Amino acid sequence: MASSHHKKNQIFLGTFIHSVKLGELQYMHDMAVCVDKFGKIVAVEPQRDLENVMENVKETLCQKLAWDAHDLAVTIAKEGQFFFPGFIDTHIHAPQYPNAGIFGKSTLLDWLNKYTFPMESSLASLPKARRVYASCIRRTLAHGTTTAAYYATLHVEPTNLLADLCLAAGQRAFVGRVCMDDRDVNPAYYRDESADEALARTRAAVDHVRAIDPAFALVSPILTPRFAPSCTRECMARLGALRRSYGGGGDVEELPVQTHIAENAAELALVKAMFPECDSYADVYDRHGLLGARTVLGHAVHLTDAEISLVARRGAGVAHCPCSNSALTSGEAPVRRLLDAGVGVGLGTDVSGGYSASVLEAARQAALVSNHRAMPVGKWADVPDGERERARLSVEEVLHLATRGGAGVLGLGARVGGFDVGLEWDAQLVGLGLVAERPDVEHEYEHGHGHHGTRATDRGNVDIFGWETWEERVAKWVFGGDDRNVKKVWVRGRLVHERE
Amino acid sequence: MASSHHKKNQIFLGTFIHSVKLGELQYMHDMAVCVDKFGKIVAVEPQRDLENVMENVKETLCQKLAWDAHDLAVTIAKEGQFFFPGFIDTHIHAPQYPNAGIFGKSTLLDWLNKYTFPMESSLASLPKARRVYASCIRRTLAHGTTTAAYYATLHVEPTNLLADLCLAAGQRAFVGRVCMDDRDVNPAYYRDESADEALARTRAAVDHVRAIDPAFALVSPILTPRFAPSCTRECMARLGALRRSYGGGGDVEELPVQTHIAENAAELALVKAMFPECDSYADVYDRHGLLGARTVLGHAVHLTDAEISLVARRGAGVAHCPCSNSALTSGEAPVRRLLDAGVGVGLGTDVSGGYSASVLEAARQAALVSNHRAMPVGKWADVPDGERERARLSVEEVLHLATRGGAGVLGLGARVGGFDVGLEWDAQLVGLGLVAERPDVEHEYEHGHGHHGTRATDRGNVDIFGWETWEERVAKWVFGGDDRNVKKVWVRGRLVHERE
Repeated sequence: MASSHHKKNQIFLGTFIHSVKLGELQYMHDMAVCVDKFGKIVAVEPQRDLENVMENVKETLCQKLAWDAHDLAVTIAKEGQFFFPGFIDTHIHAPQYPNAGIFGKSTLLDWLNKYTFPMESSLASLPKARRVYASCIRRTLAHGTTTAAYYATLHVEPTNLLADLCLAAGQRAFVGRVCMDDRDVNPAYYRDESADEALARTRAAVDHVRAIDPAFALVSPILTPRFAPSCTRECMARLGALRRSYGGGGDVEELPVQTHIAENAAELALVKAMFPECDSYADVYDRHGLLGARTVLGHAVHLTDAEISLVARRGAGVAHCPCSNSALTSGEAPVRRLLDAGVGVGLGTDVSGGYSASVLEAARQAALVSNHRAMPVGKWADVPDGERERARLSVEEVLHLATRGGAGVLGLGARVGGFDVGLEWDAQLVGLGLVAERPDVEHEYEHGHGHHGTRATDRGNVDIFGWETWEERVAKWVFGGDDRNVKKVWVRGRLVHERE
Repeated sequence: MASSHHKKNQIFLGTFIHSVKLGELQYMHDMAVCVDKFGKIVAVEPQRDLENVMENVKETLCQKLAWDAHDLAVTIAKEGQFFFPGFIDTHIHAPQYPNAGIFGKSTLLDWLNKYTFPMESSLASLPKARRVYASCIRRTLAHGTTTAAYYATLHVEPTNLLADLCLAAGQRAFVGRVCMDDRDVNPAYYRDESADEALARTRAAVDHVRAIDPAFALVSPILTPRFAPSCTRECMARLGALRRSYGGGGDVEELPVQTHIAENAAELALVKAMFPECDSYADVYDRHGLLGARTVLGHAVHLTDAEISLVARRGAGVAHCPCSNSALTSGEAPVRRLLDAGVGVGLGTDVSGGYSASVLEAARQAALVSNHRAMPVGKWADVPDGERERARLSVEEVLHLATRGGAGVLGLGARVGGFDVGLEWDAQLVGLGLVAERPDVEHEYEHGHGHHGTRATDRGNVDIFGWETWEERVAKWVFGGDDRNVKKVWVRGRLVHERE
């Protein structure tokens, strides 16, 4: 099944909601989205007569597209359901998935040594790696994540297994073998022994992805220097050269890169001490050839204005990880300033600095954390009122970051993120729960058939009463939704997850 | 069913976890907790021989308690499950439940006028109130909330209906008719027309609860001046007098009170302008006789040291509402300072300023928000490092606030909040999901019986791999759990919710 695609042309009918630009959701009702057998959206057409929609589809759409109306798969959203672009997780550590929620009162540097390196190191075991990676992929798909930029570990075979599993599951993924060859900073039990080793292992992981998905159609390699303090200058410089010179595929001009930047105050001090010749943290990456249009910088909590300007000039993007930044007490990222400077921003769950594998949870926290930047009493006291207020991110904005924003950061803006003709069908079908007209607490006792008290329904926590506008439904989804609201998930037209 | 109790003596077997003091969870394995037919815990006994536990129970425990071993209900926690005290929500607006997640970019005062007053006003309709209240109670029970301090609306009959429904559902509750008689601040369409009317309606609501639950064994009335700006001095003074003089029941010395305090900067300014004769916001309540040992103050984000000291002297408690405070950009409450000053603190969901009816979500956000108070860069810059670090709340601390802390704030510390002999059995059975040894993504395709891709399981989002310590399991539950992990819920020994 690994390389199979949906073999039929498909039509999706119902309500479609997507971001058309930062802060603006488009609501398209009574619409048909036509997806060809290669997973590409080839038509988006209003359907006036939903009563006779199947007739209309066969008579007009198939005719127009020269499709065989008898060999067609049709998916109709039920009343109240809507299609939404699949979520894009621009920063997630698959091997740390078992540690989600476990961080105590640590902050970045002690968290790495106490929780993270021991867990990552243990994934040298292939059976353990398979168990962890398979559960992580299944969980992220269930949350509606159609694209994930994964950090793996420094081990080649387990990293290759992660790529295999993504391809098998049908999840669009970037898979990065982690480079960490600094012999002072990294623990002896978990490091590359030299820049040579880091590069050789990296090439082996890149070559594996090239062997299983030659055009990087679904799975792509990504160069992954862990972060500046864990890498030697030689390692970073050679990765920078590899980034630009990779001659693997005709259509692949540059390899993408992912790393961390300016997450935590102690980390800033460490970088400053280790790289005295560089003007800034961002300059460390820039001098080593690692800042490009396909570079994803995780966190960027504490960038200076000069660094933001440099990142913008290079066209690099930021993975904003609010769950992680709050959990590890790292700080509140200046998302509005990044956006204003023209830096692309996506969302990252950053499992397990982040406690949740859900991009919806990251979107929710992105809105809440942006409010913390806007609080007027006792903090950000020197920021003018208007600028503080502007820091707040709306529901529409965080959903943009979760879809188009992430696509842009990963260089996929021309392939996924919305429902435009020409994009690929990476989508989720979202359903919210409708409250019964008379949900009487006593009623349940009398007809409970052995149950006592209220019984659980698994339609999720969002309760729709019926009078809400579509905008309100979306807000209720963002602040109360979870994987139970994700009814189906597709990547490149292929159904990769569903729940009853 | 409304007034029935569990008619049998009960024994609960397995792992019990509860807070013994702020910051300290006790893990009791292989334990039996014996609950008599009145819902009271009468024995907590270790069980050494779990293999033959039923024999042991019958031979020793029943003999010791003089119980009939043949007329006994036994509940055994499965492997990996644990009993935890029921959650206590010290601040929730039941009529605002349909608005959960809907708040846009509003802050307190515009939020009240835009979203809240219109919704509350519409609950004059009894059928609508029944639908909203029944769904709210079912949802909070499903989240493990065994006690809720509810604000209702200013309408008497719908408020009484809320009390009826709580009693029927078996949820321990405080039900407050909201007083708001200021003719300048409150909208003409939603206010008490005079202090006389506010008091008369309040008495009617109190009398109703007295009629349906004379000893306030499960449901209690609570005096509820909305907040200082919405009440006249006369109204507050007369409520203060009623608080101390209520002669309703022999065992009820004082009526409890709930209100809001110091939530938002604009509100602070309003109070200062409206009550120039008072020394502070807290002093407004104190001068009108509303600050007592059974007073619950919602929010308390911006209290001065002098106010905290006054609140502590009066023995009043605080309902900390982190979800709401982040959503409405109100601020970051000084929880550690309150605790250090000896003020009791519980958690409130504050639906719908808060977007979630889950106390577990409030606990999670309480931890995260406490981290925001500790962030060292750009904020709280004048706070010494050590004090900032002390602001952080641990998993153990937020679970204390969610149980014993809330019980103390509501004057229930001698009745619920833990598993001590003499307390009542308000509890939840928590179960986390175990990851299969070989959760292969491809496997599912081959045996999917028509399913494509991964399938959803409804064991919730917490994935346990089996190597986690109990402390780590609890952390994973706090940061990843939801209502799916709440398998059963009891109040006073009665099973009030379960899921398959």
